[in-house]
Amino acid sequence: MSVDSIATIRYLTTTSFGFGASSLLEEVLGELGIARPLVVTDPGVRAAGVADGVVDRTGDVGPFTWFDRTPPNPTEEAVLEATEVFRAAGCDGIVAIGGGSSIDLAKGVALMATHPAPLVDYAAVNGGVERITSRVVQMVAIPTTAGTGSEVGRAAMINVEGRKLDFMSPHLFPARALCDPDLTLELPPYLTAATGMDAFTHCLETYLSPLVNPPAEAIALDGVERAGRWIETATADGQNREARWNMMMASTEGALTFQKGLGAVHAMAHPLGALDGPPLHHGTLNAVLLPAVLRFNEPAAPAKFDRLRQLIGVQGDLGAWVAELNARLGLPAGLAAMGVPAKVLPRIAADAEQDPATETNARLVTRTDYEDLLRASMGS
Amino acid sequence: MSVDSIATIRYLTTTSFGFGASSLLEEVLGELGIARPLVVTDPGVRAAGVADGVVDRTGDVGPFTWFDRTPPNPTEEAVLEATEVFRAAGCDGIVAIGGGSSIDLAKGVALMATHPAPLVDYAAVNGGVERITSRVVQMVAIPTTAGTGSEVGRAAMINVEGRKLDFMSPHLFPARALCDPDLTLELPPYLTAATGMDAFTHCLETYLSPLVNPPAEAIALDGVERAGRWIETATADGQNREARWNMMMASTEGALTFQKGLGAVHAMAHPLGALDGPPLHHGTLNAVLLPAVLRFNEPAAPAKFDRLRQLIGVQGDLGAWVAELNARLGLPAGLAAMGVPAKVLPRIAADAEQDPATETNARLVTRTDYEDLLRASMGS
Repeated sequence: MSVDSIATIRYLTTTSFGFGASSLLEEVLGELGIARPLVVTDPGVRAAGVADGVVDRTGDVGPFTWFDRTPPNPTEEAVLEATEVFRAAGCDGIVAIGGGSSIDLAKGVALMATHPAPLVDYAAVNGGVERITSRVVQMVAIPTTAGTGSEVGRAAMINVEGRKLDFMSPHLFPARALCDPDLTLELPPYLTAATGMDAFTHCLETYLSPLVNPPAEAIALDGVERAGRWIETATADGQNREARWNMMMASTEGALTFQKGLGAVHAMAHPLGALDGPPLHHGTLNAVLLPAVLRFNEPAAPAKFDRLRQLIGVQGDLGAWVAELNARLGLPAGLAAMGVPAKVLPRIAADAEQDPATETNARLVTRTDYEDLLRASMGS
Repeated sequence: MSVDSIATIRYLTTTSFGFGASSLLEEVLGELGIARPLVVTDPGVRAAGVADGVVDRTGDVGPFTWFDRTPPNPTEEAVLEATEVFRAAGCDGIVAIGGGSSIDLAKGVALMATHPAPLVDYAAVNGGVERITSRVVQMVAIPTTAGTGSEVGRAAMINVEGRKLDFMSPHLFPARALCDPDLTLELPPYLTAATGMDAFTHCLETYLSPLVNPPAEAIALDGVERAGRWIETATADGQNREARWNMMMASTEGALTFQKGLGAVHAMAHPLGALDGPPLHHGTLNAVLLPAVLRFNEPAAPAKFDRLRQLIGVQGDLGAWVAELNARLGLPAGLAAMGVPAKVLPRIAADAEQDPATETNARLVTRTDYEDLLRASMGS
C-alpha cells in the first residue's frame, strides 16, 4: 500500500486522504459553491503558520474571514463569538483547520448561524438531535492532529454552563474532509502522543461496544492495529512520514467506527473535560483512564481481548500494557498528576453514569463502578 | 456478537440489519414520506410469496403498486415499462424487493421517472455520472438474496442495446436498506451458492484493488472471512440462521467496499452478462472466472494473497481452492458448461478491457490477458 497518493474515501463525509490533500481546498470550495469562507482555527495552529499555509495555497478563492480564538475545549461563548464573525462578514461556508476543538467549534457555528438560539436546545441530552436540520452551514474540515477524527464525525462536544454537552446530527458531518499528514509533521511529541491515544481509544472502545456492526468493527480493529504499531514512532520521530500517515488514518478510522458506540473511558472523559479550572486534554484523559477500564471490561469480552492482544502483539494484562505505553510516551501517570482533585470524583461518576457512552460500554457499569474506576485512575 | 438483534449500520445508506428487519418497512416509508410506493420485484420472488409477505406486514401504508416482471438481468425495456407503471399510478417512491436485478431495475426507474430519456445518456461510460441529479426518486431496498449488495451500493447494471452498462451516482444509493436474513431462508441451494460467490468475489476483488482505502479494505477482509466460513453451510442447510445472517452481512460488506474498485473478474462478467441468449447469472459467472483471475493476480500482490490464505484457512493455490469450492457448491465447472461459445471470447475480451473494473485490477491486464483468462475459464 502506497502512502504517496491521495486516496478518496467515501462513507458519510467524502474524504481526501494523503500527503498534500490540504492543497485540494480551492477545488473543494469551488465544488461546494463556497465563496466567502470563515476559517475556524486556534491560536496555536495560527501561530505555527499551519492554517495560513493552507489558506495561502488557495489562489483566487475568498475573501477568507478568520476566527482564530478557539479555546482548548470549545465553549458556547466561543461558538457565539465566532457565529457573530460569520454573520458580520456575510460568510457562506466554514473551513475548520485544527484539532478536535476547532472542528467541533466550527460545527457549533455551522449550527448557530442558521438555527435559533439557545445552543443548549440542540444538545443530544435535550432531544436536540431532531431539532438540527439540513440548514446547517456546509463545512470543510482539515485536521492538524491525528486523534479526534471529528472531520468525519457527526458529533461536536461543546462546554455549555460547565457541562460538556454532545451535539449530534447527520447534518453535522462535514461536507468534505481533507486529511493531510503533512500538517502533523511539526506536532510536538506530547500532543502527538495525547491525540494518538485518543484515536487508539476510539478504536478500542468501539471494537468492545456490544452493538452489532461488523463493518464498523472491522474498521476499528484496523485502527487498533495501526495506532498500536505507529504511535511510539510518531511520537519519537515526528518527521517519520509513514508513522504520521498511519496515525492520521487510525484517527479517521476511529471516527468512522463511532456509530458503534464508545464506552466508559469516554463517559468519564467527558465530564472531566468540563471541570472548572485549567482545561484537561481529552486525549490525555482517555489515555489515563484506559488501563482501569480495560481491566474492568475484560471479563465481559474475553474473546475480544484475546483478539486485541494478538493484533497489538502483547501478552497478559492489556491495561498494564497501556499504562506502560503511556509512561513511554511521556503521558501523565494518572488523574492526580493532571490536577484532578479527589473531591470531584463522586460528581464525575454521577455524570459519567448519565453519559450516552455508558450504554455501549462492553460491561454494565454503575455509578459505584465509576467511582472505583476513577480512584484507580488517580495514579500514585 | 448476537445475530438476534436488528443492527443499525450507517455509511451512505442507513441499513437496518437483522432477522425481522423487513418488518420496519412501514416505519421507514413513514420517515421518508412515501405514501404511494411502487414495489419492484421479479416473478420468482413474487411467486414464492416473499414480496407479498413483506408488503402485507405494513398495515395502513399504501396503496402499493406492483411491477413484478423484472427480468434475470435488468434491461432498458423493463426499466421503461416499470417507469410507465410508476407514472400511471402517481407513485412517490420505490420499494425494491429481490436480488440485484430487482434493486438495479428499481434504480433505473428512480432515475427515469425524474430525468429526461434516453437512459443511455446516464451510463457512466457516456459521462452520465454528472447528469444524474438529486431528483432521483427515493427508494427502500430489501434484498432477498445475499450476494449483490446493491441495497447499499450506488451503481446499477442495466442492459441497453446488448451492452451491460454501469449507471453510477451518489444519488442512486437507496435511502434505506432493510437487510433481513429471514427472506433468504427459502433461497434454493444453487442460488445461495451463486449469489454467495458474488459477495465473496466483491470482497476478494476489492481487497486486491491497488487503491488506497484502509477502511474499505478492513470491511472487505471481514467479508472474505465471513463468506469463506459460511457459504458451504448456507448452501447445504438453508435453514441455518447463523449462516444466512453471515452471508447477508458478507453481501452488504461486499458493496460497502465497492468504492475501492473491483477487478478483472467483474470486467469479464459484465460483458458476459450482456450476451444474447439465455441470461447468464452474474454470481455464477464471477465464481467461474475467479480461479483463473486469482492465479493471474497473485504475482502482483503476494503479501495480500498470504493474508487471504490465512483468513480463509487454506494453503497453496487459492485459485485451485476456489475451483474445488465451486464444485462442492454444485456450480458449473466453467464458461462452456454455462453455454458460452468460444467464438465470443475475443469480443468479450475487448469489452472487458474497456470496463471500469479493469483499472483497479491488482495486476495490469491487457486484452490478450483477458483472452487467456477467458480460455482458461472455459473448463473441460
